[in-house]
Amino acid sequence: MPTDRVAPEAPGIPETAREVRLAAHLDGAATAANFEIAEVPVVEPGPGEVLVRIDHVFVAAAYQDLMRPDCPLPVPPYRVGGRIGGGEVGTVVRSRSEDLAVGDLVQTMAGWGEYTTGPAASFHKLDAGLFPSSSYYLSQGPTAYYGMATLAQAGEDDVVFVSGAAGGVGSLAGQIAKCRGAARVIGSAGSKEKVAYLVDELGYDAAFDYHDGPVLDQLRELAPDGINVFFDNVGGEQFEAAVQAAALHARFALCGALSGQIGGGTGGHPRLDLMTAITRHLELRPYATYHTPEQIWAWTEHFAKWLAEGRFVFPQTVVEGGVEAAPGALLDLLAGKHRGNLAVRFSSAAQ
Amino acid sequence: MPTDRVAPEAPGIPETAREVRLAAHLDGAATAANFEIAEVPVVEPGPGEVLVRIDHVFVAAAYQDLMRPDCPLPVPPYRVGGRIGGGEVGTVVRSRSEDLAVGDLVQTMAGWGEYTTGPAASFHKLDAGLFPSSSYYLSQGPTAYYGMATLAQAGEDDVVFVSGAAGGVGSLAGQIAKCRGAARVIGSAGSKEKVAYLVDELGYDAAFDYHDGPVLDQLRELAPDGINVFFDNVGGEQFEAAVQAAALHARFALCGALSGQIGGGTGGHPRLDLMTAITRHLELRPYATYHTPEQIWAWTEHFAKWLAEGRFVFPQTVVEGGVEAAPGALLDLLAGKHRGNLAVRFSSAAQ
Repeated sequence: MPTDRVAPEAPGIPETAREVRLAAHLDGAATAANFEIAEVPVVEPGPGEVLVRIDHVFVAAAYQDLMRPDCPLPVPPYRVGGRIGGGEVGTVVRSRSEDLAVGDLVQTMAGWGEYTTGPAASFHKLDAGLFPSSSYYLSQGPTAYYGMATLAQAGEDDVVFVSGAAGGVGSLAGQIAKCRGAARVIGSAGSKEKVAYLVDELGYDAAFDYHDGPVLDQLRELAPDGINVFFDNVGGEQFEAAVQAAALHARFALCGALSGQIGGGTGGHPRLDLMTAITRHLELRPYATYHTPEQIWAWTEHFAKWLAEGRFVFPQTVVEGGVEAAPGALLDLLAGKHRGNLAVRFSSAAQ
Repeated sequence: MPTDRVAPEAPGIPETAREVRLAAHLDGAATAANFEIAEVPVVEPGPGEVLVRIDHVFVAAAYQDLMRPDCPLPVPPYRVGGRIGGGEVGTVVRSRSEDLAVGDLVQTMAGWGEYTTGPAASFHKLDAGLFPSSSYYLSQGPTAYYGMATLAQAGEDDVVFVSGAAGGVGSLAGQIAKCRGAARVIGSAGSKEKVAYLVDELGYDAAFDYHDGPVLDQLRELAPDGINVFFDNVGGEQFEAAVQAAALHARFALCGALSGQIGGGTGGHPRLDLMTAITRHLELRPYATYHTPEQIWAWTEHFAKWLAEGRFVFPQTVVEGGVEAAPGALLDLLAGKHRGNLAVRFSSAAQ
């Protein structure tokens, strides 16, 4: 007869903890006034439940979109008084479930709090020994992998173009293509510094600054025989140029610039040259992922392997400072102050 | 030891026969002056070859595009002095091949001539007993089937929208969706007469005239819960409306209005609302088919079954008059004088 396993009293679990809440829905861009930090009780787990200490939280530009009451994403927006976030890793510190033990590393969607309590089945157990830090589990990797590998199926002999290549998704997407054997990976970005970063640090074969001239001209120069795969983070002129530069049967993973578009960006309604798209049999796959366990695992498996082989650079910034630092980290991300992927360490005990 | 089989002298095979040639490349729309009818020798088959009498020829609007020297289709345009056409059925009348016998019905790309001679392997053998007439093998069916079944995978519970539904492709595409169990098939066309034709004769559940108001308004009224499949023959406003009316994970087969676009139509560069396409995970498949044997067979197999079950109407016009009538049939088609699919009978012996 199975009984609830109650872990021995763990030292250092407080009676109350802090969380970051949405103070008010957005009317424009996010500011510090949209966030509030609240002190709440740490809830003891009931039967079948676990208590998890949040170690690292992810920071994504899309969170700003979820702060709008009319968010067009097909997921519920944040409610006022509820937690920000939705991609965290933590450690089980109390368990009343047979499925998770104290010390287990888990993925959660519980949001930016120091602790969360819930049914064991609502957490996804992770392999704590796979990466140097649990923060490696927090990235746009599943989105980049799903688009580049599952949808666009970038592989050997492919010439790949990634727009917005220095961003959270793009900085991973190009490397994924390279690791899958792409013949040539080309990236676009918005500054000379980012262009150098792509080539010098992330292994892009070529890159260009879209301020330096028409995207199509630069793309044709760097990919004279056309592109086989386009991974789009931008839309607009980059999308229109990619259609013109596409080879027969080119595959387009259109990850889009969700935040840019919602926030008033101009990339959202490019012209689609149907004649060219038809005669070249383009395959256009606009998509947004929500990091299902399958998608996370598909990414994690390859990411760990490529890291171990020394073929992958993980462009991540981890901000210290816990709960207090999280709102500022998101505001800095939205202001363009970070490259790659961004996380905040929530617990000094985090590995 | 296999030897060449020479068929007994077939009565009625002339020493010369006629063919329709491109007299001059197009500079604008096709006119009678672009065609010439020439008398050429009927060539005796060599070893491994057969002589085929052309029974019916297909007439497609895309042929006008192939009459342009700068045709954007990824197939060679017609050369001046060469035959028009590229989709015909005929009967083997002399054979020096073990693979085809006199009397066999075959598909050919030999063009608008009364006879053609070539290697047996250049013909595709057909089942003469499958249809009431060999003309049934000539249609946009492979194009419609590939788009609706292979790419869009229309099936049960799907709400399907077909633009340009009374045309050669559209008149088949809607019926294909219906036969595959679609819950509701909606068509658009350019006149009240065509709208009535779609509903009364082709089994569409609903149809509308795009002159009667904005496409999106009419589509939303007829498909209040959104469309799951869009089969596009038009582009432009129809495409833009379909994106807005799309349900989550809707599949778009973009067959396009190739001729209209090449000929100066306005449907070729619609806006693509990337945000909507991304959040709804649309699957966009622009395509042009060239009727490979596999595509022809996939269509033919289902077409014959659905016809036998009394579930399919074949909207075809067969023009009598042979070689002399072919150029005029194409000009009439381009002038909008035909609905559905068009063929010309080339031999009075054709079944």
